[in-house]
Amino acid sequence: MEYCFGVDIGGTTVKIGLFRTDGEIADKWEIPTHVENRGEAILPDVAEALKKKMAEKNLEISQVSGIGIGIPAPVDENGIVQNTANLGWGYKEVKREMEVLTGMKVAAGNDANVAALGEMWLGAGKGEKNMIMVTLGTGVGGGIIVNGQALAGAHGAGGEIGHLCVDPEETERCGCGNRGCLEQYASATGITRLARRRLAADDKASALREKELSAKAVFDALKEGDPVAEEIVEEFGAYLGYAMANLAAVTDPAVIVIGGGVSKAGEILLGYVEKYFKERAFFANKETRFVLAQLGNDAGICGAAKLIL
Amino acid sequence: MEYCFGVDIGGTTVKIGLFRTDGEIADKWEIPTHVENRGEAILPDVAEALKKKMAEKNLEISQVSGIGIGIPAPVDENGIVQNTANLGWGYKEVKREMEVLTGMKVAAGNDANVAALGEMWLGAGKGEKNMIMVTLGTGVGGGIIVNGQALAGAHGAGGEIGHLCVDPEETERCGCGNRGCLEQYASATGITRLARRRLAADDKASALREKELSAKAVFDALKEGDPVAEEIVEEFGAYLGYAMANLAAVTDPAVIVIGGGVSKAGEILLGYVEKYFKERAFFANKETRFVLAQLGNDAGICGAAKLIL
Repeated sequence: MEYCFGVDIGGTTVKIGLFRTDGEIADKWEIPTHVENRGEAILPDVAEALKKKMAEKNLEISQVSGIGIGIPAPVDENGIVQNTANLGWGYKEVKREMEVLTGMKVAAGNDANVAALGEMWLGAGKGEKNMIMVTLGTGVGGGIIVNGQALAGAHGAGGEIGHLCVDPEETERCGCGNRGCLEQYASATGITRLARRRLAADDKASALREKELSAKAVFDALKEGDPVAEEIVEEFGAYLGYAMANLAAVTDPAVIVIGGGVSKAGEILLGYVEKYFKERAFFANKETRFVLAQLGNDAGICGAAKLIL
Repeated sequence: MEYCFGVDIGGTTVKIGLFRTDGEIADKWEIPTHVENRGEAILPDVAEALKKKMAEKNLEISQVSGIGIGIPAPVDENGIVQNTANLGWGYKEVKREMEVLTGMKVAAGNDANVAALGEMWLGAGKGEKNMIMVTLGTGVGGGIIVNGQALAGAHGAGGEIGHLCVDPEETERCGCGNRGCLEQYASATGITRLARRRLAADDKASALREKELSAKAVFDALKEGDPVAEEIVEEFGAYLGYAMANLAAVTDPAVIVIGGGVSKAGEILLGYVEKYFKERAFFANKETRFVLAQLGNDAGICGAAKLIL
């Protein structure tokens, strides 16, 4: 088999990659996600897109190992989804339906877990088999790779790093209903919240007082030497670094990969996390490496492709 | 193959089991652990014991699938140990040495991870593939089973549940050098420490004031309705339950198994842990079952045997 497909289904678009089995991306493109009518067109649309691509490239089914699919929901080991927040699907046998639609082998997994698998295969975790990936975007997502496989758990809900409780004293609620979730401090919105709280605490001069607050504004001010921005990033670093120290004690990763929009702040971010990580890490995990994700939006299609190999 | 061996190496004795591959224990016995001279006799002693047993039972090598070994140290995927606290070994290629000594296939793993595997195979986690086992003894040990395999991690140090930081405000140090480790509150010695602190806090009447403090004394007093003992167990339950809620958010287990000496307190213990677990668990994990371990000291030999199957 020379090829496989990696499919990353999002609420707005479906990203699709045609991969050589050695990891080279032969082609990639997007199609819109039609979530109306309980998302009934999504899988047929994808199947149609794959068939067209195969015709265009003169590919036979015998040349394709199969199709890996990342889905924004828990996915069990049989490729079944119970519910989705933004695809319109309720119960859906994704693996079986897609196999019927295409005649090819299909594997499905949670999108955050799949993205972690992508970074392990072709990105920042290349060559490693034990890895944590934490994605700092609007929320905090994550994937844990154990011995080369994504940790899916009993209900496909493994790797919910964003909902580790890191501050039991928190008074505001997280979107999940709990209080003190890592997502409330380490996501883009969480960092903005930390900034708002810090600025309200006193009148200390800061460039941030003149700007529209955002995670990007905080890191930009940090790079300009703003002391209040530094305090905010220290606080972010402590929440994330301490959480990673606990996570490392139980998962013993070789590397911790940090991705998502917030990670565009660059290498400067890693130091603030690593410092607090080392302070609390179990001795066996002190040397765990921190690196930035490398694949950006391609992590999903890469990991999806890896699912089937 | 009809048989396999499970070997659980401890600092004082080596427990050995001869298993039918369907899980029935055909025989079990112990030999002393000779830790002198850097533990050089340990593996030859075990090999000798296995050979004798095979002669006694008229077993041929062709009838035995192999030997699984649990070791009180991190063990990497090649069955190599870097160091041990109480066997005298430094760097040791356990798998390779034992294969040379016996001519049989060998697999090795950390003893706590292996015990978890045992409970999954033949005990409290039977039928499940995703499980957390927490062992409350002198310390707090643990094993995490992911998709039927023990989570070993990059250095074989996975599953160090006892060293999750659960109280950053702690002033006393854990044996590992950090402060606020779960082990400082949920082990037998940790519960005794909680009791001592609680009794020193005021003069409230309690049967515990007349007794030598121990985890057992606390649970015995709880069963007699002692209100101070109940406060202590509530505190223990909060530390352990909250820690399990965080661990479940990332590992999504079907069941959490509680074993070790402290678990001899019985079913009453589970309620105090579960109550706090439910309070903080991520919604996908609220229904995780809590059960007591069933195999006692046999968990190690059972899990070791399962390693090789």
